[in-house]
Amino acid sequence: MAEAATRRRARGGGGAARRAERSAVSVETAKFIERKIPNFEILNEEALETIEAHAETVLEEIGVAFVNNPAALERWRDAGADINGERVRIPKGLARKLCSTAPSSFTQHARNPDRTVEIGGRNLVLAPVYGPPFVHDAAGGRRYATMADFEKFVKLGYMSKWLHHSGGTVCEPTDIPVNKRHLDMLKAHMTLSDKPFMGSVTEPSRAQDSVEMCEILFGKEFVQDNTVMTSLININSPMTFDDVMMGALEVYAQNNQGCIISPFIVGGAMAPVSVAGTLVQVLAEVMAGIAYSQLIRPGAPVIFGAFVTSIDMNSGAPTFGTPEASQVTYGAGQLARRLGLPFRSAGSFTGSKLPDAQAAYETANSLNMGLLSGVNFMLHACGWLEGGLVSSFEKFVMDADQLGALHKMAQGVTVDQDTLAMDAIAEVGPGGHYLGCAHTQANFKSAFWRSEVSDFKPYETWSEEGARDTMALATERVQYLIDNYRQPPLDPAIDEALTDYVTQKKASMPDAFM
Amino acid sequence: MAEAATRRRARGGGGAARRAERSAVSVETAKFIERKIPNFEILNEEALETIEAHAETVLEEIGVAFVNNPAALERWRDAGADINGERVRIPKGLARKLCSTAPSSFTQHARNPDRTVEIGGRNLVLAPVYGPPFVHDAAGGRRYATMADFEKFVKLGYMSKWLHHSGGTVCEPTDIPVNKRHLDMLKAHMTLSDKPFMGSVTEPSRAQDSVEMCEILFGKEFVQDNTVMTSLININSPMTFDDVMMGALEVYAQNNQGCIISPFIVGGAMAPVSVAGTLVQVLAEVMAGIAYSQLIRPGAPVIFGAFVTSIDMNSGAPTFGTPEASQVTYGAGQLARRLGLPFRSAGSFTGSKLPDAQAAYETANSLNMGLLSGVNFMLHACGWLEGGLVSSFEKFVMDADQLGALHKMAQGVTVDQDTLAMDAIAEVGPGGHYLGCAHTQANFKSAFWRSEVSDFKPYETWSEEGARDTMALATERVQYLIDNYRQPPLDPAIDEALTDYVTQKKASMPDAFM
Repeated sequence: MAEAATRRRARGGGGAARRAERSAVSVETAKFIERKIPNFEILNEEALETIEAHAETVLEEIGVAFVNNPAALERWRDAGADINGERVRIPKGLARKLCSTAPSSFTQHARNPDRTVEIGGRNLVLAPVYGPPFVHDAAGGRRYATMADFEKFVKLGYMSKWLHHSGGTVCEPTDIPVNKRHLDMLKAHMTLSDKPFMGSVTEPSRAQDSVEMCEILFGKEFVQDNTVMTSLININSPMTFDDVMMGALEVYAQNNQGCIISPFIVGGAMAPVSVAGTLVQVLAEVMAGIAYSQLIRPGAPVIFGAFVTSIDMNSGAPTFGTPEASQVTYGAGQLARRLGLPFRSAGSFTGSKLPDAQAAYETANSLNMGLLSGVNFMLHACGWLEGGLVSSFEKFVMDADQLGALHKMAQGVTVDQDTLAMDAIAEVGPGGHYLGCAHTQANFKSAFWRSEVSDFKPYETWSEEGARDTMALATERVQYLIDNYRQPPLDPAIDEALTDYVTQKKASMPDAFM
Repeated sequence: MAEAATRRRARGGGGAARRAERSAVSVETAKFIERKIPNFEILNEEALETIEAHAETVLEEIGVAFVNNPAALERWRDAGADINGERVRIPKGLARKLCSTAPSSFTQHARNPDRTVEIGGRNLVLAPVYGPPFVHDAAGGRRYATMADFEKFVKLGYMSKWLHHSGGTVCEPTDIPVNKRHLDMLKAHMTLSDKPFMGSVTEPSRAQDSVEMCEILFGKEFVQDNTVMTSLININSPMTFDDVMMGALEVYAQNNQGCIISPFIVGGAMAPVSVAGTLVQVLAEVMAGIAYSQLIRPGAPVIFGAFVTSIDMNSGAPTFGTPEASQVTYGAGQLARRLGLPFRSAGSFTGSKLPDAQAAYETANSLNMGLLSGVNFMLHACGWLEGGLVSSFEKFVMDADQLGALHKMAQGVTVDQDTLAMDAIAEVGPGGHYLGCAHTQANFKSAFWRSEVSDFKPYETWSEEGARDTMALATERVQYLIDNYRQPPLDPAIDEALTDYVTQKKASMPDAFM
């Protein structure tokens, strides 16, 4: 708390009491996770080699489709692929060779240098939910998302200590025209937060707008030399690379901006029902996508993505936090590391309609698996509900709180003279207790991760306070964070230039809602 | 379902419709988990050796206390320990040497041989919550547990496919005198279920009663030659072995019955605040306890136990599903394997007062950690609420459902010509979908684990059906399982003999409620 307070600048307005209260709110952001624990390796060497060999066969014999994109076909032809219509068949070894120019890790700069993240290696960067058209909270239920909701999520993300990244489409602001909402979304990330963020991918021109807005925020030269966005390029599984996504990838790669290249797989629908078959397809798809990014610009920063869910074969509904999805993710992490690429997967996944026990089981399954599978960039790390149709305010803060546990877990176990605590064991002895001993007194503040949402009070106290469940506690937490939100400072000239850019862009075209 | 139906025997009574409905209910029990995935190893060799060396130092220099137990002190003296009052100092190497006669795995027989479990090796046996004085459900809230509640939990355990073990004190039947309730509890496990169970440990005489009741159920000779109970012997951490628990251990070890020998640690109170220090103490305690069991009877079956929670240093409340508890458990698993002993830890732990999101996050954290840490016997695997004060009916079935995911996860990833699914990938090709392809049709029934509690329906359907949260769905599931419960058959002569034993024992002493 004190640390947070010293980081805050005194501001005008409001009484001393309110200032004191506000300055007591933590707006510190934890550094991205640097793992000191091993990864969980579910596949042995033979299994990995078999999957890799089969992925090469898929690329060579079945191939992938680059649709509505003659220039991409030309690039592939020049690189040595066999082109037949829109089908690109890639000789064994070629995709992997092309992938080798992609960096094993890269720096994504934030406008606040303290928030800059390093994506790759042993690191884990956490970013919020992406994409839902609906929002949900206890007071308003489920409803279409608006720009006001979007801004509220960006503020919550800024106030969330364990979240390193502001994300992208934290919800779809459906009250803003489709062809203009990216402008408002980017401006919100740029001005309401100082954490790193994602660019637009819904049209190549919007990717270009994202780059131009970053040039205003960071300076044109800085953007030429540095990565300031990491954007989400989904592969249309199975094995289809559409022109919109590839167009956005082309813009970002040309500008040396980061992209997650990610199959979007509901197992049994967009990939085989088996884990091994899904891994073959995921690897083939990602290698083709990353190879293509390197054809655009060798060295362009990219992430090996794997969005994988399973399916309820009775209803066809996607299911989340399931063991099969975990098995795919553990395996995909191993494959990504063998390619020497940063890995994106996992998130606060659930199929539940409410932030209830189902939601939390599924989310915890997925978050734990994400940590242990070696994920480097976790999109959807908080706030996801109902299979990604809904961004939940309460679940956002509930999940964001749980991310603190991942930080602590990742620190691993230090074994040294202090932590071995032999003096304490001798001091306390059989039948004693440790609460008052010197070692406990010296270490208790940092010894245990502490939730800021969960309730540990005795039953009677909890009961007197209203017998609140996690949802009710989270509703309060959302309000607390929003009440205490203060906008991070930004050069007024930059703010004005961004506003001008958005105004002019919006004026340059009619509204479109499709 | 069909498989379950064929396992059921036709019974008299009731109409055909009711029989058909009942026979459709699954009463199959999954085989205990046989892991085909690696363990997660958080400590390296150097850390493990350091912790082991320090545990030996603790035993030699600080020692442990065996209180009110002169015979135990005599046994230790004969074995070579240094005795000073009730303090037992164990020379380096002695405890580990004594532990070496304990088996690395053992068979616990159930009266239904299909339910017999193998505890140790790569296996994981799941048993329900143990010990709470309260129960909770949606209809009745939180209240003192009764024998009727106890029986209901035993029935739920019997009906839970993923639960291999009927457990012990699934709740404390507080309406039965303290000195007699073990008789009713054991009779319930023996007659309402056919899964393996635990014996009483609250007095050595009650352990003896447990053995005698097993002699009725299994036959006297069978019990002499076989392990038919696994009972819970808690160490009074730090480093105190009380006469009640040791007395029960002595009875069970003499009779070759299984015991979990388990420190009960709230970190920071009963052990140092540091993970490494806790591991030193846990190892010292367990080695002393298991060594003692082997002094009673070399070869007696035992389990290396570790019940570890952390503490909220602000309030002193125990906290569950935390990263520090996971780190201790991962480490303890490694230490247990190096001792060549079965390992007990983890469970459906939570500090929450309700089966809400907090409960599920904490439980899922703990269940996943339990699977990956190599636990062989997981007590409290379902039904635990409010730090172990409460057995929750709804949470019992919610957790028991999640245990299915552990089974699937533990199967690992099979990589062979069928699972690689190359024919399917070729058949479907870029842009196609897998739902109808031959590989999916051949494999979809077993491809994905399916929850029997969670909801995956579309929002509109879910909404029309009452917008039920997990708690509401679980309430229905509890009722469904109880409605469909049918008692497993038991030789009427054995049933009568058990009743006679309980009646006579109860008549032989006045009621005691302390």
